Amino acid sequence: MVTAGVGAGGALAVGADEAPASPARNPAPGGPPAEQFHGTHQSGIATPQQRYAYFAAFDLEVGDPKGKRLSTERIATNFQHLMERWSGAAERLMRGRPAGPLPVNRPGAPADSGVADGLPPSRLTLTFGLGPELFDTIGRQEQRPRHLRELPAFSTDQLQPAWSGGQLFVQICGDDPQSISHAFRALRGRAPGLARLRWSQQGFLGRFGDATPRNLFGHKDGTANPRAGTAAFDDAVWVSGPDEPSWFTGGTYLVFRKIRMDLPKWDTSTALQQDQSIGRRRDTGAPLSGGHEFTPPDFGRTGPDGEPVIPPDSHLALVRDIPMLRRSYNYDYAFQARAEPAGEHDHHGADRPGHSHDDPLHDHAGTGHDTYDTGVLFCAYLRDPGDFIRAQQKMAAADRLNAFIQHTGSAIFAIPRAVQPGRHLAAALFPQR
Amino acid sequence: MVTAGVGAGGALAVGADEAPASPARNPAPGGPPAEQFHGTHQSGIATPQQRYAYFAAFDLEVGDPKGKRLSTERIATNFQHLMERWSGAAERLMRGRPAGPLPVNRPGAPADSGVADGLPPSRLTLTFGLGPELFDTIGRQEQRPRHLRELPAFSTDQLQPAWSGGQLFVQICGDDPQSISHAFRALRGRAPGLARLRWSQQGFLGRFGDATPRNLFGHKDGTANPRAGTAAFDDAVWVSGPDEPSWFTGGTYLVFRKIRMDLPKWDTSTALQQDQSIGRRRDTGAPLSGGHEFTPPDFGRTGPDGEPVIPPDSHLALVRDIPMLRRSYNYDYAFQARAEPAGEHDHHGADRPGHSHDDPLHDHAGTGHDTYDTGVLFCAYLRDPGDFIRAQQKMAAADRLNAFIQHTGSAIFAIPRAVQPGRHLAAALFPQR
Ligand code: HEM
Ligand code: HEM
Repeated sequence: MVTAGVGAGGALAVGADEAPASPARNPAPGGPPAEQFHGTHQSGIATPQQRYAYFAAFDLEVGDPKGKRLSTERIATNFQHLMERWSGAAERLMRGRPAGPLPVNRPGAPADSGVADGLPPSRLTLTFGLGPELFDTIGRQEQRPRHLRELPAFSTDQLQPAWSGGQLFVQICGDDPQSISHAFRALRGRAPGLARLRWSQQGFLGRFGDATPRNLFGHKDGTANPRAGTAAFDDAVWVSGPDEPSWFTGGTYLVFRKIRMDLPKWDTSTALQQDQSIGRRRDTGAPLSGGHEFTPPDFGRTGPDGEPVIPPDSHLALVRDIPMLRRSYNYDYAFQARAEPAGEHDHHGADRPGHSHDDPLHDHAGTGHDTYDTGVLFCAYLRDPGDFIRAQQKMAAADRLNAFIQHTGSAIFAIPRAVQPGRHLAAALFPQR
Repeated sequence: MVTAGVGAGGALAVGADEAPASPARNPAPGGPPAEQFHGTHQSGIATPQQRYAYFAAFDLEVGDPKGKRLSTERIATNFQHLMERWSGAAERLMRGRPAGPLPVNRPGAPADSGVADGLPPSRLTLTFGLGPELFDTIGRQEQRPRHLRELPAFSTDQLQPAWSGGQLFVQICGDDPQSISHAFRALRGRAPGLARLRWSQQGFLGRFGDATPRNLFGHKDGTANPRAGTAAFDDAVWVSGPDEPSWFTGGTYLVFRKIRMDLPKWDTSTALQQDQSIGRRRDTGAPLSGGHEFTPPDFGRTGPDGEPVIPPDSHLALVRDIPMLRRSYNYDYAFQARAEPAGEHDHHGADRPGHSHDDPLHDHAGTGHDTYDTGVLFCAYLRDPGDFIRAQQKMAAADRLNAFIQHTGSAIFAIPRAVQPGRHLAAALFPQR
């Protein structure tokens, strides 16, 4: 039923231009202010974290409808069309405006899905990125940011290809999931013929106000982050200097990891084991060496047994002082998303009452938790992905957290700087235009 | 990695009692008030709709760890244990309290996951239901509500068994997805050995304030609902009178349907086709016969062509005046959830650039939308599920909406009335206790 007649039978205006943006409508009174699409850096990075996030990766179409390979120049042109469409739509959406008519549309079709009519922008941000493979695909190898290459394999990886990689990336954040769904639909509807969706993920944060949000292990997550507006932040995040292609100045890198948490195991370990895995107390976020959440950890401090109170293989001891902005979201999908191939521990559907279990209280297969997919959509924004690699290599080698987590998706993107009105986000890659 | 050692190696205190509830902590100042677990009717029905919802169905374990069938009396006892655990946890969670220690727990394990520490209850409600099969499984056929039987098949059904049915049901609604995730984990963690998860779904509504929320077709959805506190509402929703077992007075039925929307097709149809499918204008919600959102529709009114302006096969004309409370949520999963078996139109992963498409703009397989799963988690609360059946039969026979929707999941539950402190939600089924 879903396939029957979709898009068929009508004269489709293919590639019709975006409607010109109409003057900004003020967001609903009392609503939070709109974020800015134009400027120096893309929004959604230094922006205080919104409560919801939708992440998606796309790949460019490299074949024509008959399956014939397109020329590199044609693919590069398609890419620019898509970036023009996306940049225009993103700018309008962030102001709380309709995205404009879809490029593939019937005469008489409405200019917007209307699902966000009456909703303020709710701090909507759309942040775009470019994957390593993209630069080959569009013939711009020379312009590839210097550190943009696939991440090395880490010993603890359990990556699913279906949740990894991608040539184009978008992060959509905001305080209202309906405006996010609206925005994603507007982007996705502009892709057919040019690019197709590769993966998507959705996350949330509780309404913790000014307090550090908690992850699904219950720990405050983000304590040691550099603060926007400080030199430490700018140093950690924004690319500058002569070792990068000049078009990329003011940009950054995003390392994205889908990290599953084994909550049944975590929930049945002791509070001490939990705190020692992190190196901080779950209730207050204070380091195990004492003080409050923002007291600097004292890694030399020992307990009555002569051992360091912050274990050397705790997460904190291993990854401390590695500069990056972590801007992660929690996810809770209950069951695994479709993209993951069924594994031997997948019992959903098959594993119905009456089937045999050795011991439902000790056997993972018997807990009813084995297909449960929940964890962290880990996002590190940083000037040098080498710092992520260094941190992740230390974690893979020793981190106590490893007993409770599993990296199942991975991607890396170059996040270009923002643009001025009239230019699309990747225009600097095509100086001749 | 996920399976290694989960719950293993520790002396587990099986079936340990819940910790006694400590005195209510006031919700964070300025936060919305907490909803009440105890009372006449369960909360989450007449409660003004919260912004997020988590729906899940469970089945009782009917075999022991060796696969041997349990006696009906043993299953009924397990069921009561679970309802006691869930009722106690729900009452605490709705007050913004920790749920209490898990029944399966190690000494030293924390009393709560802590992921909602510092969050106000945000109008959290937990609403429980009982499926038709349950009454056989626990040997209480005599007590089965009179209208509680599996729904008949409808001609347009495309149901997935993995998204349908269930013996036990929980709806968790609230304004903060992190408290909802917290609550679901607390319930699920109480099930091992007694019941296992069958399916789960998650939905949202935009922050429309006092305005009627919009569904993902962009239409206002809920306009004609009876208003809580009116006689029309009570008549439509709450069970009373002698034709039902007396324990069920003050309860209601829930019909749950997972309805996928074909957004690419909708987005490329005309505004007129869209409005005529519903019988109302998308922008204002007014009936096509004129007026504003709450003007009664005039089905006799004809246009210049002599045809009724509200088409007789529009949704509105077909289902009008059928009494029920619709309390539905939008969902947007991007890709299909795992539970659905791969069909011939599933191209995710396989359908990569370079594969052949007859026409990417006219062929559904080429839109990149074919595995996109988004729509409505339709919830009808009503005194008589026969009214739903009547409405759905009319829809299946004629509704213009059918061209754009597909029912992929279905379930029906009896929702018992609320209880007084100290009793669990299904206690009335076991009068001897
Ligand atoms: C599910 C996986 C993870 C969890 C639950 C987790 C949790 C935490 C927590 C609770 C803290 C302490 C509070 C804070 O400063 O935010 C922390 C700090 C940190 N984490 Fe993670 N983390 C995870 C994965 C990672 C990964 C993959 C990396 C990078 C490879 C990383 C890098 C860091 C860094 C750099 C810090 C700050 C350390 C400092 O300088 O004090 N984390 N993490
Ligand atoms: C995706 C599927 C559906 C969509 C998009 C949809 C949408 C709508 C809309 C826009 C309205 C008008 C505004 C309002 O009163 O809420 C409406 C009314 C209504 N719908 Fe649906 N609906 C769907 C499925 C169903 C189903 C499955 C049923 C029951 C079998 C149903 C029963 C009703 C009823 C009883 C009304 C009120 C009619 C009146 O008395 O004015 N709907 N629906």
